[in-house]
Amino acid sequence: MAAPKENLLMEKIVSLCKRRGFIFQSSEIYGGINGFWDYGPLGAELKRNVKELWWNTMTRQREDVAGLEATIIMSPEIWKASGHVATFSDPMIDCKTCKGRFRADQINEIPCLQKPSKTVSECHGEKTAPRAFNLMFQTYVGPVQDESAIAYLRPETAQAIFAQFKNVLETSRQKVPFGIAQVGKAFRNEVTPRNYTFRSREFEQMELEFFIKPDEAVEAIAGAVSTPATKGHPGEPQPAWGWQLWHQYWVEERIKFYEGIGLPRTTLEEYWQKPEELAHYARATVDILFKFPFGTQELEGIAARSDFDLSQHERFSGKPMGVFDDELRTAWGKLPKEKQDDLWKRYYENRKRYLEKSGVAAEQASKDATEDANGLAKGQYIPHVIEPSAGVDRLILALICNAYSEVTDTDDKGKSETRVILRFHPRVAPIKVGVMPLLKNKPDLVKKAEEVRDRLRPWMNVFYDDTGSIGRRYARQDEAGTPFCVTIDFETLGEQGEELKDTVTVRHRDDGKQERIKIAALLDWLLPKVR
Amino acid sequence: MAAPKENLLMEKIVSLCKRRGFIFQSSEIYGGINGFWDYGPLGAELKRNVKELWWNTMTRQREDVAGLEATIIMSPEIWKASGHVATFSDPMIDCKTCKGRFRADQINEIPCLQKPSKTVSECHGEKTAPRAFNLMFQTYVGPVQDESAIAYLRPETAQAIFAQFKNVLETSRQKVPFGIAQVGKAFRNEVTPRNYTFRSREFEQMELEFFIKPDEAVEAIAGAVSTPATKGHPGEPQPAWGWQLWHQYWVEERIKFYEGIGLPRTTLEEYWQKPEELAHYARATVDILFKFPFGTQELEGIAARSDFDLSQHERFSGKPMGVFDDELRTAWGKLPKEKQDDLWKRYYENRKRYLEKSGVAAEQASKDATEDANGLAKGQYIPHVIEPSAGVDRLILALICNAYSEVTDTDDKGKSETRVILRFHPRVAPIKVGVMPLLKNKPDLVKKAEEVRDRLRPWMNVFYDDTGSIGRRYARQDEAGTPFCVTIDFETLGEQGEELKDTVTVRHRDDGKQERIKIAALLDWLLPKVR
Repeated sequence: MAAPKENLLMEKIVSLCKRRGFIFQSSEIYGGINGFWDYGPLGAELKRNVKELWWNTMTRQREDVAGLEATIIMSPEIWKASGHVATFSDPMIDCKTCKGRFRADQINEIPCLQKPSKTVSECHGEKTAPRAFNLMFQTYVGPVQDESAIAYLRPETAQAIFAQFKNVLETSRQKVPFGIAQVGKAFRNEVTPRNYTFRSREFEQMELEFFIKPDEAVEAIAGAVSTPATKGHPGEPQPAWGWQLWHQYWVEERIKFYEGIGLPRTTLEEYWQKPEELAHYARATVDILFKFPFGTQELEGIAARSDFDLSQHERFSGKPMGVFDDELRTAWGKLPKEKQDDLWKRYYENRKRYLEKSGVAAEQASKDATEDANGLAKGQYIPHVIEPSAGVDRLILALICNAYSEVTDTDDKGKSETRVILRFHPRVAPIKVGVMPLLKNKPDLVKKAEEVRDRLRPWMNVFYDDTGSIGRRYARQDEAGTPFCVTIDFETLGEQGEELKDTVTVRHRDDGKQERIKIAALLDWLLPKVR
Repeated sequence: MAAPKENLLMEKIVSLCKRRGFIFQSSEIYGGINGFWDYGPLGAELKRNVKELWWNTMTRQREDVAGLEATIIMSPEIWKASGHVATFSDPMIDCKTCKGRFRADQINEIPCLQKPSKTVSECHGEKTAPRAFNLMFQTYVGPVQDESAIAYLRPETAQAIFAQFKNVLETSRQKVPFGIAQVGKAFRNEVTPRNYTFRSREFEQMELEFFIKPDEAVEAIAGAVSTPATKGHPGEPQPAWGWQLWHQYWVEERIKFYEGIGLPRTTLEEYWQKPEELAHYARATVDILFKFPFGTQELEGIAARSDFDLSQHERFSGKPMGVFDDELRTAWGKLPKEKQDDLWKRYYENRKRYLEKSGVAAEQASKDATEDANGLAKGQYIPHVIEPSAGVDRLILALICNAYSEVTDTDDKGKSETRVILRFHPRVAPIKVGVMPLLKNKPDLVKKAEEVRDRLRPWMNVFYDDTGSIGRRYARQDEAGTPFCVTIDFETLGEQGEELKDTVTVRHRDDGKQERIKIAALLDWLLPKVR
């Protein structure tokens, strides 16, 4: 539970977001809709910048990741394979008296609908036993609304990546290890959306599935598997890396990403899930947490998911999800028999464990696992996966919370005014530069300011403002998080001598300092700072 | 109906899109899901580029447009106000014999499910009367699935813009005329998805709602309303423009956009809807059509929607949607009484017509319209809107169809090979440049090639390829639509003299021509071509 001071801070942030057009309640004029939020002009730019930076960092700047953009509605079979149809649910209790429906784990907190002085568990209403309530939004595709037409809005973007794994592999000239990245909307019918945009029913994810060789294949090829214990710290990707090093590598990459867009390391925490907290398919999961005013909460989870997902889709679709690895096949042939047997056995055990866990009968599981392990000799295996999965909306909220600061200015007469500065990293800031003629009624200033604006605009988001005192205009840009303001003044026109002609005042948001820069040099000065 | 030659062309395009990772069938491993398509690595890049160019052109490069990113699920009240709940439907007929459900307007074409030699209208099955089948996907929000929890996936992005009109206006420092732009997914449960990705059930839109003064306000301020007849052709936006000039302006802007991303004017057609084709709220609609292989079909519609949408939301939400215009208030006070009366009367008539059409009783409509018209004197009105609404997916398909070409190379021995070149405009091309060391087993070439790659990569999407003959590699990039290939060869290393040292071969996709460019000058040479 956040302390009152933190609650006050959140209130201020929510109010600023509405006032400056970062975030609005969805359908506000109709009283809103619980768990849905819209991004206004500044919020939409902020979000675009963050998604674009993620995409650039994860795909375009790397050799080993390809992109994907899949649909939100997919075959319902996908959600059977992933386990979401069977288990993606909260247990709910119905009260037959008040007709309310409540999460079973919250009946000791939630007030009764008829007697709010009592909790649901204390009231006398007759209650049903807990029943599973699936969190996927359901709809029907096609003209007939029957069982066969049921479809779901995806509760995560990851599964599309697994379902299209083979298509991407075959068309992208990648080979394992490589990743597939996707950004897109996902939906969860949360019973209790809360903490502003942090837990919403409609949200956006940025997910990478990074496919790696199983450790047995690495060992066959490289002779031994590097682990954090043997190798310590990941430097350049290495052919000998096992899943643990790949996992650690991605944790560090992702933290670098957050630092690179302005979340200091001190605002982040790394949380290694305990064995009993891990999802059944996960070998390890690290949560990257951010210190929100309402508590320290997850921004991203980085899970080592073994070969669970591809295996499930292979079982459910009947389509092979394994890859062929020439290097493994060659290496295998050169291994001594005992080594082959040892690797075979370990791979077999892992596959059998997976199959039995997934409900395959023991005899069939042994048979299938044998076949899987026999594949190694032919260079075949099902890749394992490391999944860095980030939430866009909670990252936007983290960036706003982190950027929020107040300063108090006191004027000559001792009158104080407190105002907000959003200290966004220039890379994510919605507006990169404010361009302002000192006075709007001097055509020479206006003409020059428009020239400067038009010179910068093809390269970055510019806000042109000629209204009000220059101090007011700076303050407005501070509140929007604009890192730089450029003012065109009489010096620019050459009225204070040749030296200052065609220079502008560049004012820095965070310390208010000003410097003069030549118009001809301005773009080159700004560009590396805002990209 | 497309001729066989066009069908063959579409088949080739569909096959290329799958083979090169532009477009996959959604959930393909599970047999697919009708009307849903995924974008693979090249398709995802192509789509990102198109959306980014639209957003830049429509918002960042303009003073008068703000962005928005709203949710897909909104309050169901929005779709009551917009008319979608009541009227966004196709008439369907059920056959009680075969249990099929068919679009009433297609029963003369569709074969009977039991006797395919007959059409549905010919067969003897007992049929129901046509019933309205709503095209919105429906779901439930929250834990209880009852009437009050029904929600819809938005069938268009436009309505969110209208619902948030006031929030954007109040936070963005814009005033009428100005626009709100949005890119995002929309969903229509089409009975017959067809023509590949052209008509899908899940698709993406790029919509601008551009809000303008009603003509009566323009006339009050400017003395007269400019029309295409009085003014001819829109140059710079003018305060005297009426809705017809704004409409024409946007038609021309949008055609310029398509030309700017590589669709020649000759592939486009402008279709002015006839009065009997217009939607009930539209004063005029222009469709921009593209000549697809399967027929000439709509890419974008540009509708003059009067003040219908904001008026509906005002009526349904009870929240005022009008704006206050100081210029109008001042101008109005200076008008002669007869002029005021004339404008008042015209505005009144328009409002009354809208209200009566919307089902408001005559007496109430008169009363409300009187109040609306009285607002003019206080500078108040409900803005009119021009809506350029484009489909992303059909634009992607148009770009691919337009880019598709085949060339036949004949070698020394007279052996011919036909291969594909996708002649994308460099601005939209998924990969901007291929970077290739002439030989992969020469460390000096590889090192230099990696340097070139790393120099370009922060600025554009680069594909590094060192596998196969250089001719093969060029052909692969031609097929992906990459406009430029850069080869690092022995000249680059200075082995053919100082003059050629640190230059590379730049090879042009469309004519195969090559030129040598200094590595130091390469980025500046490429950047203006691909942005």
